[in-house]
Amino acid sequence: MTTICIDAMGGDREPKVVLEGIAAALEADDELSVLVAGNEDVVVPFCAKHERARALVTTQTIEMGEHPTEAIRAKKDSSIVRGLAAVHAGEADGFFSAGSTGAIFAAATFGVGRIRGIKRPAIACPVPGLDGRHSVLLDMGANADVRPDMLVQFAHMGRAYSRITLGVEDPKVALLSNGSEDTKGSEAVVAEHEALAKAGGDTWFAGNCEGTDILTGRFDVIVTDGFAGNIAVKTIEGTAKYILAEVKRATQESKRALLGAGLLKPSLKRVAAGLSGDEYGGAALLGVKAPVFIGHGATSVDAVKHGTLACAAAVRGELVDKIARAVAADQ
Amino acid sequence: MTTICIDAMGGDREPKVVLEGIAAALEADDELSVLVAGNEDVVVPFCAKHERARALVTTQTIEMGEHPTEAIRAKKDSSIVRGLAAVHAGEADGFFSAGSTGAIFAAATFGVGRIRGIKRPAIACPVPGLDGRHSVLLDMGANADVRPDMLVQFAHMGRAYSRITLGVEDPKVALLSNGSEDTKGSEAVVAEHEALAKAGGDTWFAGNCEGTDILTGRFDVIVTDGFAGNIAVKTIEGTAKYILAEVKRATQESKRALLGAGLLKPSLKRVAAGLSGDEYGGAALLGVKAPVFIGHGATSVDAVKHGTLACAAAVRGELVDKIARAVAADQ
Repeated sequence: MTTICIDAMGGDREPKVVLEGIAAALEADDELSVLVAGNEDVVVPFCAKHERARALVTTQTIEMGEHPTEAIRAKKDSSIVRGLAAVHAGEADGFFSAGSTGAIFAAATFGVGRIRGIKRPAIACPVPGLDGRHSVLLDMGANADVRPDMLVQFAHMGRAYSRITLGVEDPKVALLSNGSEDTKGSEAVVAEHEALAKAGGDTWFAGNCEGTDILTGRFDVIVTDGFAGNIAVKTIEGTAKYILAEVKRATQESKRALLGAGLLKPSLKRVAAGLSGDEYGGAALLGVKAPVFIGHGATSVDAVKHGTLACAAAVRGELVDKIARAVAADQ
Repeated sequence: MTTICIDAMGGDREPKVVLEGIAAALEADDELSVLVAGNEDVVVPFCAKHERARALVTTQTIEMGEHPTEAIRAKKDSSIVRGLAAVHAGEADGFFSAGSTGAIFAAATFGVGRIRGIKRPAIACPVPGLDGRHSVLLDMGANADVRPDMLVQFAHMGRAYSRITLGVEDPKVALLSNGSEDTKGSEAVVAEHEALAKAGGDTWFAGNCEGTDILTGRFDVIVTDGFAGNIAVKTIEGTAKYILAEVKRATQESKRALLGAGLLKPSLKRVAAGLSGDEYGGAALLGVKAPVFIGHGATSVDAVKHGTLACAAAVRGELVDKIARAVAADQ
């Protein structure tokens, strides 16, 4: 049995959506058991109805807009803090939440702890590419300032994630820059390039890539500091929103466009779902001593199901051990 | 008469496209005359047929992939180097090319020269927003490493551009960051925020914005270093390409989707054209002593026409003087 702790209170949607997602995950995976963290009226009735579900009753909820470190200090009986403490105590093997990324990051770093040797945990985000390929982009926002040696660790963490979650055998890593030539980039990025070339230049490091490469699947792992990664991920989100809004506007101006959009709707929805990363469990917090997956706040039943299953797969694939070994080999 | 020098050899398309664009601009603007730089067989026959066109015969062409500073040194008789020299000599008031951004940047910085007091010229890129609004994003790649005082100059330059090219009366400026709170960002960005708040906190500075804000039109000007700006602009381009490719893929899998895409095609084309920035003349090189506009390499007749007219409007709107005055007032 693999046990995943799930935050029933996380996200902007009502807990019902999360509970349905957990039920779907239990249905799909016979070797899965869950520890459901949340308010008594939410989690107790659910767990009474499901054999492989145990309740972790908590009384507080960290909201999406709260300051992360202040929230985890003030709300010690929240589903996020208590859920991650349960993982630390060995009551669960991994954690999934659609709650505040910042609060989960802070609670996991303090509560579960970093893998030995890891300088900074990072948040990895799966992104789709052309022809059904996928890449993983990290860090997407946890570390605005990084050093070259951290980028090398991000590469190791991203490769372990790519193997286990995306099923890539020998993942190749690129560094996000403002040009594909080796010498392109800010002074910091040029130094990061050198460190990556030294660590994986003969094996897994594929050189620099550009913003246009992110959604092509050309590279299995794309590493960058959390500042540029955050801008890239949010620019993808903003561009998709812009295009959908413009298509919608066109439908208000022309009957042809309205009919066309109606016929294309299932395809457009699929494109939007692909961009959300939900298919692969959402974002993953890498570098802490247990798999932690983070869904979008505006979550769905499927997103919770995929997130729970991806987290269980990361436990079984020994994500943490693989990261620990790769980082130790590099010291 | 306003005279714009146009590079007939710039871009991936044949010179015929550029010439048709110039003809369309001459047709649209009676007060416009052009100096057309390029190979004799391209520019001489064209100028013989158009009253307000003069030929600047050159023998070399800088290709898109060439190293900018090496190319401008090696090809002194290229349309870009000679065209910008003609602007410097007063034979034309502004310059438009769909050629290599890097080569134009280098040739303009050395050949035309910086406005007094400007530390670093920057490349500004118009982007669409919701409800027909537009913003300008700068720097989009010229300066990977910046100092806080340069960002303040970018703000002044972007405001002058926004007034003249986008017609905004009192443009508001935001700083691109990984969160909207004042304290968000890398150490460098936090320092940039402080400098911008000091310079325009009571008037034109609107605080931080995120990647999701770029295509909303919420802010008239978005400033950032050339590294993050390049990643943002190229991520927009890559996301649009990804979405169009996925829509195309859907049409191969379903007849409904094929029909829908056919009906939506004019709207999708309009969205793509809006994202290209061509409607406003493409990118603008700000901070040099003459208006310089840069079209996409994969240019079109309309893009050349708009670029030429936008450049003429920048001359008449006294873009250079307005930048010089704003920067001098800030010293």
